[in-house]
Amino acid sequence: MATLVLGLDEVRQIVHRAGIHNVVDRLVERLHGAFESLDSKRVIVPARKGFDYEFPLPGMVEWMPLMHRGKSILLKTVGYHPHNPAQGNLPTVLSSLTRYDAATGGLVALVDGTFLTVLRTAAASVVASRLLAAPQSSTLGLIGCGAQAVSQAHVLCRAFPIKEIEFVDTDAAAVASFASRMAPLLGSHVLLRSASLAEVVSRADILCTATSIGVGQGPLFDQLPHQAHLHINAIGSDFPGKTELPLELLEQAYVCPDFPCQAVSEGECQQLEPNQIGLDLPTLAAEVARGGVEAGHLHERLTVFDSTGFALEDDVVMTLFLELAEKFQIGQVKVIESHSTDPKDPYQFLWSRRGAQGAKNHVVQETER
Amino acid sequence: MATLVLGLDEVRQIVHRAGIHNVVDRLVERLHGAFESLDSKRVIVPARKGFDYEFPLPGMVEWMPLMHRGKSILLKTVGYHPHNPAQGNLPTVLSSLTRYDAATGGLVALVDGTFLTVLRTAAASVVASRLLAAPQSSTLGLIGCGAQAVSQAHVLCRAFPIKEIEFVDTDAAAVASFASRMAPLLGSHVLLRSASLAEVVSRADILCTATSIGVGQGPLFDQLPHQAHLHINAIGSDFPGKTELPLELLEQAYVCPDFPCQAVSEGECQQLEPNQIGLDLPTLAAEVARGGVEAGHLHERLTVFDSTGFALEDDVVMTLFLELAEKFQIGQVKVIESHSTDPKDPYQFLWSRRGAQGAKNHVVQETER
Repeated sequence: MATLVLGLDEVRQIVHRAGIHNVVDRLVERLHGAFESLDSKRVIVPARKGFDYEFPLPGMVEWMPLMHRGKSILLKTVGYHPHNPAQGNLPTVLSSLTRYDAATGGLVALVDGTFLTVLRTAAASVVASRLLAAPQSSTLGLIGCGAQAVSQAHVLCRAFPIKEIEFVDTDAAAVASFASRMAPLLGSHVLLRSASLAEVVSRADILCTATSIGVGQGPLFDQLPHQAHLHINAIGSDFPGKTELPLELLEQAYVCPDFPCQAVSEGECQQLEPNQIGLDLPTLAAEVARGGVEAGHLHERLTVFDSTGFALEDDVVMTLFLELAEKFQIGQVKVIESHSTDPKDPYQFLWSRRGAQGAKNHVVQETER
Repeated sequence: MATLVLGLDEVRQIVHRAGIHNVVDRLVERLHGAFESLDSKRVIVPARKGFDYEFPLPGMVEWMPLMHRGKSILLKTVGYHPHNPAQGNLPTVLSSLTRYDAATGGLVALVDGTFLTVLRTAAASVVASRLLAAPQSSTLGLIGCGAQAVSQAHVLCRAFPIKEIEFVDTDAAAVASFASRMAPLLGSHVLLRSASLAEVVSRADILCTATSIGVGQGPLFDQLPHQAHLHINAIGSDFPGKTELPLELLEQAYVCPDFPCQAVSEGECQQLEPNQIGLDLPTLAAEVARGGVEAGHLHERLTVFDSTGFALEDDVVMTLFLELAEKFQIGQVKVIESHSTDPKDPYQFLWSRRGAQGAKNHVVQETER
C-alpha cells in the first residue's frame, strides 16, 4: 500500500508546471460543478470535530471527514492558531489532507492542506459570488489584509471585471505590504487603494471579510452605507462566538452558508434564526443550474456568503492536485503503513528481503524549475 | 513546519536497531505506566468516529483523536477491512498515526500505524493479563490464528512463563502456518500445538480471541469447561454487533474494558448491563498500583479484558518509536504543510528561493542493515 506524498516542494512544482492562474481557474470550474451535482446520498460529510484550547496559546485542531460512498474517504486536519504569524512566522491556518481507499482502508495520498485550503476557500467565494454578486462588479473591498485576502483578491479578480481593490486592516504593516503581495497575481489594470473602513464598505460591489477578530469582539463595523447590490464573502467567522458582520446587515441580506450545520455554530449564521438563512451553496448552485432559482434577483440585492469551510471543497482541490501530480509525474511514493507479504504475519516485513524492497522509498520524479 | 515521517522502511530499521523483544518489553512498561498515571483532565480522548459500509466490500475507516492538553494532539486513522487478506494480500487493519503541536497546529510526525497497532494491542493485553491473569500461567490458548495471534502470543510469552500454546482457527491454512510464523519470536521451550476449540478453552490459563467472525455470528463457542482462573483477552470484538464470547461466560467473569464508552457499543460489553462491567483498565491499573484493589483475588477468578482499542495506547507506542527514531537518527524529515516565510502571503513559497530551500526534502539518515 504505497502513499503518494505531495508536500510544499511538490505543490510548488505542480503550480509552476500548470501555472497559478490555470490552477485556480480549473479549481473554480471543478468546485462549481461539484456543488451543482452534489448528491448527499453518495457524498457523506459529517460536521467537523476538534479540540479547542487556550493553553499554551489559543487555538484549535480539527478534523473534517468526507466519504465518497464506495470510493474514497478524505480526512482533513486543520489547525487555527491566530498567534502563529507573530510567534512562529507560521500561517494562522496549517492543514494536511489524507485520502483512504474505501476498498482496503489504505492511505492513498497525503497532501499539503495549507496552500490548498487557501485556494479552495477563495474558489468557494468565487462560486458563491458568481451566484450572488452583480456580474459587472468592478470594486472589490477587503476588510483584513492577511493571507486569505491575497487569494480572495487573486481569484475574484479572475472571475469579475475588477478595476479597483480597496482594503483596510487594523494592522498597519498588513496594509503597507498588501500591494506588494498582490503584485505577482494581478494585471496592471487593477488599482489597489488603502481606504477607511467606511470607504471600503460603501464603495464595494463585492466585499470580503477575513480577519482574526477575537471571540465576542465582533462585528467589524456597525451600520455603514453600502451599495444596494453588495455581495459579501464572510470568511473569518469560523469559530463559536467569532463573527464579523453586524446582525442588522445580516437580517437585511440573503445569507447563503456553505455548510449549514456548521455555519449555525461557527459562522455568521450563529446570529440568525433558521428562517433567516437562505439556501446553502450546493443547493443554490444546483437550483440555479436547473432554473429553479432566478439568480438575477440575487445579483441585485444584498447577499452574504457565510463561508466556514466544507470538506467537499478540500476533496475537490485535493483531487485536482493529485491529477496534476499524475499528469506531470510529480510526487514522492512512500510506504507509510507497514505490512507484510503474508497478511497473517505482521512481523514478516521485519525479516523479509521482499519486505525491504517493497519499502524502498522511490521518487517518481522531482523536477525543479 | 517540518514533519518527521516513519514509514515501513523506518519502522523496520528502528526495530532492527533496538531489537523486537526490547521494543515490546519497553512498550509494555510504558503502557502500564501510562495507564496507572492517566489523568483524564490532562489527556482528553473522545470516542472514535468513522464511516462503515458494505460496498465495495464490507469495511470501515475510523479516526481516533487524543489531546495532551497544552502539548500535542494525536489523530489515528484505522481501517478494518476483513476481505483485505484474501482480496489484496493486505492486512485486515491498516493504520497511520499523525501528531500535531498544540502550540501551532503543525503536523509534527506521520508514523506507520499498522505494525504499531499490532504491537500496542498486544502490549495492552499484557498489561491487562498482569493485572487479571494468574502470574504462573503456563498455557496460552488462541482462538483465531491471524495477524493478531502472532503478536499476542509473542508478547504474552515474554510476560508469563508460557510453556505451551494451543491454537485453533476455522481456516486450516492459518493453523498450518502458525508455528512457522511464531518461530522467529519464541524460544524452543515453548510447545505449539494445534487443538480443538474445546481443548483450547479447557486447558488455557490465558486465552486470546482474535477472529474475523461476522456481525451477529458470535459467540465463538457456547458453554465449555474452562479453568477456574481463566483470563481471556477478547481482542476481536470491536464493531457494533460483533462479539466473540458467550453471554453466560461474560456474566460469570470480571470484565475489564479498555475504554468503556467504546466497549459498550463495539466490544464484548455490548452484551452486558452497566453493573456487570468492572473497572476499566486505566482505573484498575491505578487502583492496583495504589493498593485500592487487591489483584490476588482477580488472579484466581474468571476474568475478561474487553479490548476495543484506545488512542492512549497509540499515543504511547508512537512516542516510543519517535524517541527511538531520534536516538538512532532514523527518519525522513519533509515539509508537508506548505507555508511561506511571510505568513501573510500564502503564495510566496511559490516564488521564493528561500521557500525552495525550506522545502528541500532531506533525509536525516537512512541506515539499512
